[in-house]
Order: sequence, then C-alpha cells, then structure tokens
Amino acid sequence: MPTSYHMTPEEFRRHGHAIVDWIADYHRRVESLPVLSPVAPGQLQAALPASPPRQGEPFEAILADFERLLLPGITHWQSPRFFAFFPANTSGPSLLGEFLTAGLGVQGMLWATSPACTELETHVLDWLVDLLGLPDAFRSHSTGGGVIQDSASSSVLCAIVAARERTTQGAASRRGVEGRLVAYTSTQAHSSVEKAVGIAGLGRHNLRLLDTDNRYALQPEALARQIAADRAAGLQPCMVCATVGTTSSNAVDPLPEIGAICRQENVWLHVDAAMAGTAAVCPEFRHLQAGLEFADSYAFNPHKWMFTNFDCGCFYVADRSALIRALSILPEYLRNQATQSGAVIDYRDWQIPLGRRFRALKLWFVIRHYGAEGLQHHIRRHVELAQGFARDVAADPRFEVVVPPPLNLVCFRHRAGDAFNEALLERLNRSGRLFLSHTKLGGRFVLRFCVGQTHTEESHVADAWREIQSAAEALAHAGG
Amino acid sequence: MPTSYHMTPEEFRRHGHAIVDWIADYHRRVESLPVLSPVAPGQLQAALPASPPRQGEPFEAILADFERLLLPGITHWQSPRFFAFFPANTSGPSLLGEFLTAGLGVQGMLWATSPACTELETHVLDWLVDLLGLPDAFRSHSTGGGVIQDSASSSVLCAIVAARERTTQGAASRRGVEGRLVAYTSTQAHSSVEKAVGIAGLGRHNLRLLDTDNRYALQPEALARQIAADRAAGLQPCMVCATVGTTSSNAVDPLPEIGAICRQENVWLHVDAAMAGTAAVCPEFRHLQAGLEFADSYAFNPHKWMFTNFDCGCFYVADRSALIRALSILPEYLRNQATQSGAVIDYRDWQIPLGRRFRALKLWFVIRHYGAEGLQHHIRRHVELAQGFARDVAADPRFEVVVPPPLNLVCFRHRAGDAFNEALLERLNRSGRLFLSHTKLGGRFVLRFCVGQTHTEESHVADAWREIQSAAEALAHAGG
Repeated sequence: MPTSYHMTPEEFRRHGHAIVDWIADYHRRVESLPVLSPVAPGQLQAALPASPPRQGEPFEAILADFERLLLPGITHWQSPRFFAFFPANTSGPSLLGEFLTAGLGVQGMLWATSPACTELETHVLDWLVDLLGLPDAFRSHSTGGGVIQDSASSSVLCAIVAARERTTQGAASRRGVEGRLVAYTSTQAHSSVEKAVGIAGLGRHNLRLLDTDNRYALQPEALARQIAADRAAGLQPCMVCATVGTTSSNAVDPLPEIGAICRQENVWLHVDAAMAGTAAVCPEFRHLQAGLEFADSYAFNPHKWMFTNFDCGCFYVADRSALIRALSILPEYLRNQATQSGAVIDYRDWQIPLGRRFRALKLWFVIRHYGAEGLQHHIRRHVELAQGFARDVAADPRFEVVVPPPLNLVCFRHRAGDAFNEALLERLNRSGRLFLSHTKLGGRFVLRFCVGQTHTEESHVADAWREIQSAAEALAHAGG
Repeated sequence: MPTSYHMTPEEFRRHGHAIVDWIADYHRRVESLPVLSPVAPGQLQAALPASPPRQGEPFEAILADFERLLLPGITHWQSPRFFAFFPANTSGPSLLGEFLTAGLGVQGMLWATSPACTELETHVLDWLVDLLGLPDAFRSHSTGGGVIQDSASSSVLCAIVAARERTTQGAASRRGVEGRLVAYTSTQAHSSVEKAVGIAGLGRHNLRLLDTDNRYALQPEALARQIAADRAAGLQPCMVCATVGTTSSNAVDPLPEIGAICRQENVWLHVDAAMAGTAAVCPEFRHLQAGLEFADSYAFNPHKWMFTNFDCGCFYVADRSALIRALSILPEYLRNQATQSGAVIDYRDWQIPLGRRFRALKLWFVIRHYGAEGLQHHIRRHVELAQGFARDVAADPRFEVVVPPPLNLVCFRHRAGDAFNEALLERLNRSGRLFLSHTKLGGRFVLRFCVGQTHTEESHVADAWREIQSAAEALAHAGG
C-alpha cells in the first residue's frame, strides 16, 4: 500500500495547467455548443457507475469522463448566446481570483481566522459604494456596512431577520415570531422574498403581494393603504421589499415614495437590485436607484452582471446593529482577543452560515483589472445591444415589445398569441443556437431576452434576432 | 478607448498557469509561514488605496499586491501545523474540480438549468451512502436523498424548517410560527443550532440546552423529561438536534436512545456530524453513528475532513417531502417541462438560496482520485496521530487529557490552571509555528488539538508537542 494517496505537487501543476487550458479553450468554443443541454432526465446518472470506486483512478480518466459524460449535460451559462433568466457572468480576473481563493482555502468567519479575508471584503464593499454611487450610510465607517453573501435570497432572509429584530426589539429572536408581523412586496418581486418570509417564520400568508401599475412597478398608494389596514387589524408591519429591476420585466419600484412611507411608518425597507444594481457603475443609469437613501438594506449581485463568478452577492445595511444583534452568538471555542476588543468585524454575524470563503478576492481582481472605465464600457455595451434588439423587435409588425426596457432585459412577444409564443420558445431553445426564457405579464406569455453574458457581442444579438424571426416564420407556415 | 477590456484567452492561459504554480508552491512553503496571521486590526485596510481605480491595472501588479499586502494577513488553514477549530482541508483533485466549476460557471437551481450539475450531485451523494454506511432511506431512490449545502449551519436551518413543516402540517410556513414550538439540543451542540432556531422564528428561548453527562454527551433521560414537561405546559416539541462529534470535545450523543424517544414522540431528529461524519469511511469508526437510522436529517461536511475544499456540506433527509413542501415556490419565470414532468430533482427546493454552484464536481474528483482505500488511509492516519498525541500528553505528568478522544480531536490542559493555559495558548499561537484553539469543559479552560489538515504528518504532530512542552516550561520559569 502506498504511504500517501495525495496528488503530488508535480501532478497538481501538470493537471492544473491542463485545466486552465481546458477552460481557455472552452470559453472559445462554447458558442458553438448547444446552449441548452439536450439530455433527457436520468441519462447522465445511467451512464455513471452505481458504486464509488474502491481504488483511486488516474486523473486523466476522470477528466476524460468529465468531457465525455458530463459536458453534454451542461447548459452553457457562459455562452455568448445565453439570453435566459438573468446572466451569471464571469471573466478571466474573476476566475483567477476564485482559483487563488480555493488554493488558500481560508475561513473568514472571524476577523482572526484570516484578517485579510475580512479586511479586503470591507474595503472592496466600500469601494463599491463609490463605484455605484450608493448612500454613505452603507460605508463601513458609517453606521452600516457591506458583506458578501452567496445570493440575493440569503440577503433578503438576513434583511427580514434584521427587520424582525428591529420591529420587535429582539422579542421575535428570543421568544419566537407571534404571527402578527407583516411584510410587503409587489406581485412582481422575486420568489426569494416569499421563500424568506416563510423560512423566517412570519408565515407566507403574512406577505402582502401588492398589485402593480401598468409598468409592473409597486404602487405606493396601495402600499400605504395596506399598511394602514393591517395596523387597524392589530398586525405589525415589519418590512417592505422593493425591487430595482424585477426578474420578470426589469420593472423599477418607485423608491422615493416607498421610502417616505417606510420612514413614516418605521418599517424596514429592503431593496433588491440583484442584476440591475450593477448598471449604477454608469452615472447615466443611477436615476434608477434614486431614493436608495431610504433603504435599510440593499442587495445586488456582482455574480450576475459584474463579471464576477457565482457566488458573490453584495448585501448592505444602513445600520448594522439590528442585523448583528439578530445573528450574533459567541460560543467559547470562537472567543478571541480581536473579537473581544471590538476593533474588528466578524462577518459570521452578518450572514446565516458560520463558515465563509474568501470571496472578496475575485471581486478585487475584477475591479482592479477592469477599473471603473472598463466596467462602464461593457455595461453600456450590453444595454445598447438590448436596446437595439428592442428597436428591431418593435420595427417588426409581427412582434411587440411588451414593456419599455429600462436596461438590458427585453420582454417581447409574437402577436400570434400565447400558444404560438410557447411553441416559438420551445423551438428556439431546442435549436441549441440560443437560449432565452419566458415570463407572464398581464396574464400573457412573454419572451425574455437578457443581454449580460461577458462575451455577448453585436453579432450574437443579431444572430439571435434572425433565429427568432425565421423560427417564427417556420412556425407560422407549419400552422403553429 | 479599447473596444474590449476583457482578459484575452492568451492572457488567461498565461496568468492561469502562474496561479496554478503559485498554489503548488504555496502548498509546499505554507508550513514555513506563521500559521496564525500576526497583523493588527486595520493594518491591511490602511495599506489599500481608499478609492477604486479609474482605469484597469496589469494583472502582474494585482498579483504582486496580493503577495505583498494580503498574504501576511492570511491565517494558513492549509498549513500542516494548523490544529485549531475543525480543519477545512482540501486536496489537489478538489482544487482542480473547483477550477472547472468556476470555468463552467453554471447554475444548478433547476435540473433544466444544467442537468449534469443536478444528476452528478444526486449520484455522488448516493455514493456517499455506500462509502459511509449511511441509512438506505437517505438514497435518492428511496423516500429521502442528499443535497450539497454551503455549511452545516444552513443544513440545520433547513432541518428546522422541515421539522416545523411536519410538526405543524405546514401551518408555520403559511400562517407563521406561533411561539409554541420547542427544539432540543445539548449545551455542547454547535452555536449554529441556536442561530438557526432564532432565524426560523422559533425564538432562542424555545431551544432547550440540555445538560450533558461526564463525557459531554446528551442524556436521553433528561431529553425525555424535558419533552414531557413541555407537552404538559402546552408547548409543541418540534426537533431534537443530536451531535456526532461536538465542536468542543468531539462528544458523541447516544443516537439509539435519542432516536427511540424522537420516534415515540414524533419529533424530528437532526444529526450533526459536521467533521466526525467523514470518519465513517473506515468501518471501524462506524459505531459512532449507530442509531443514525432514526435520523430524519443528517449533516456532515466533506469540506472539513474529506479533502474537499469549502464549501461542500452534505445534507440528507430520510423523507424529502416536508423539506420540499417548506421550501418550494415556483414562479412563472422558472417553469419548465422537466420540472412539470416530476421526473427530475430541482435542488433549489432543498436549500435556502435559489442559485447554486456545481459543487458535486470537486467531490466526484476527490472520491475518484482517492477511492475508498485512499480516503480510509488518510483518515486512519489522522486518527492514529491524534491518539498518539493524546498518549504523549497523558504520559507527561504536567498535563492531562481532559476527555478520552474518540477520533482526531484531543482536549487537554496543563495542570497549572486556567490562567496558565490561556497564557500557554497565546504564546504558542503567537509563535507562528502552530495554531491550536480552546474551549471550556466543565468550566475549565481547555486546549483543543485537532489533526485533520491534508498534509499533517507525524513530524508536524511531534514538533507541535515539543513546542507545547517547551512553551509550558518557559512559561513556568517565567512564573506564568
């Protein structure tokens, strides 16, 4: 028997170079692969051995199986022909940062468990306040601060827990939720709000899903009325979640009016700008986040549109005290001088899990590699391409743009009705030549076309529009 | 102005190779670096520019700053001289899997968003049922199944939410927690249990922290008494969290007795074996998890002791229905044929966030690289080294082993009292030559020595023991 089964440094070096080359090649050839994986349910599992290996296998064999068995089951989020959902884009500097993070393998749960992990995170999140023109209260030297979460879902859960803490002066955390707390959002808000309200024990029925206006934005008057009705019924309004750029249609809730209501009613305002938040690197798009100074908490994800690979979700609070009070527990085995001194941030108190990766590194790499200028260039370009696509759609009498696109997401449909649009989507995605997704707006089936993948260029958007037109034509001829 | 600010494939290749080499070199030299970072609070932030760069910078400059500014602020979890907390170990195959995961950049929230991501995860978690001798109910083809979470903290939160769902037939998720649900664990359980109970809205005061026996294990009789008292008071017992290998001292709660009580009382049993669970790759350690067939849910983290880098926490349920009912919400923009067909798993319904990385890839690489044989070899070796260390400590009349170590964690102290042990810990960690942590057991300050870093060999443990002895001697002479 060998005395060690570990990969030697030489093997790691050799295979590591091969993986780097594989990734470089992959990003070159990915646009020629079917974007949406065509495999059938169970197909991959059926091809894998039922039992784990008794003895280790050569790395070359593992990599060959990866290429042969797994790659066909990949839906290629990094294809420049990926227009579905929201992007989860990435970039060279981000990947290199992620590699280093994995190599260091440090835990940042406490400042003391790796000071650089905490301090770089604080610093980079302060940088983003500058880069995006966010409110000063979000800076670490103010009353608030930022932290990297895995997702906007976890951010909204943290927001609810902090809101609950503030609203009940801690009673909900100590004695339990009493079923009288109410949260508010629009029917267009992300499903993670409802999920988080359920997890936090408020009860999903105590989330008010408010109707929206004709641009799918929350109506402040409806919010004010509902809060008043709930108070009259003896309930306790706790949190409002407003969205800058909804998932369905990129609708922007009116933050100034909503914020004024929340301030008056002393209700926590959480703002979710998971994708659209990145647009604020360009001053010309900052009007979309006007009123953000009313927010008690704010989430946007560099892992969507800021060239930073998943996971990297930024979560800011204007006043960190409620969040920390709700989430801090200090067992003996984590006590240390730095924590006792009060001079440091321990990010475990800003999130659900205890453990945490050094995620700030990739974000630091991205910001330094691109600079403000580079980020602005590419975000502007994506918006231009989406707006150009919307103009093409609008110019074709067979199609309609369903709602004016504020940024990089275009919601459109063929005029031939829901069934036709469903069939059109199915046909396009099955072609493998592009991938888009859908939603329902005003009860109608609508196609979503989002431009945000790192390497999406004009040609990819033009190709996509041609594919859409010709698929629609073929479908119309087939009597679809 | 350039037309693109992206890193070219050639640059990515070149810098990628350099990063791989940097990591290979780092893992070689890490044992010569101070394990615990010696920087002072704020030191790193003071060295960084206050504002983000307007223009992008060369990658070489970024990497040079990383080495010069950040590395001194790193506490080296991958040092073979890291004996603190629980390990967060890693390995060559795991890192290579993590690189590929980042390069692919796929989202596995739904089966359809990247089928391979879901199917490989299901498959590898089924493999682990074989590898670790886990109950059959945890297999995906049975009533249950496994999923990869970011941490044991998130796993226990999911367990509580599922337990709440089952106990209240969904009322808690719909209408809110009513402050009558009670959870149970021992005083020695991980702080994440208390944190999760707070987040889930049960109220921390409704978590009963039960006293333990002289080996720091939960006492089934005390549990039964408390459940009876709570029922008599009109409260609703909801969940018990038992631990296999507590963080303080690796204590093992008696699962068969606890399980029988839970079954009788119809209370959800969650078992947390975050680190110790990996030991079950060796049949001779499986007695520690006897009674696991009573568990409704189970968590162990390959990212602690199974050579798989953070994050990779495995979470199993014996019956997936309550978990999915509690966490599933399907908005229009995520609807798809595969989900509607019911033939696939959508892992977003098994976790808090929506988005998810392809974490199964690194775990698959690790299992295939080492095979069962390789994993067993290294786990056995770590346990042997820890047991040898315990024998050395026991043989030195100045020291005592505080509790018999079941596996790879040794709790010990110098006989000179708490203040001496605190000073000893401080002196050892400040030396940079090893890093260990502490806890309190029976009110006394105790040193924790955990052997689990991938490259920890006999020589590192022997060096550590010599360091401990000579530091104690120096301290005794100094009148410490």
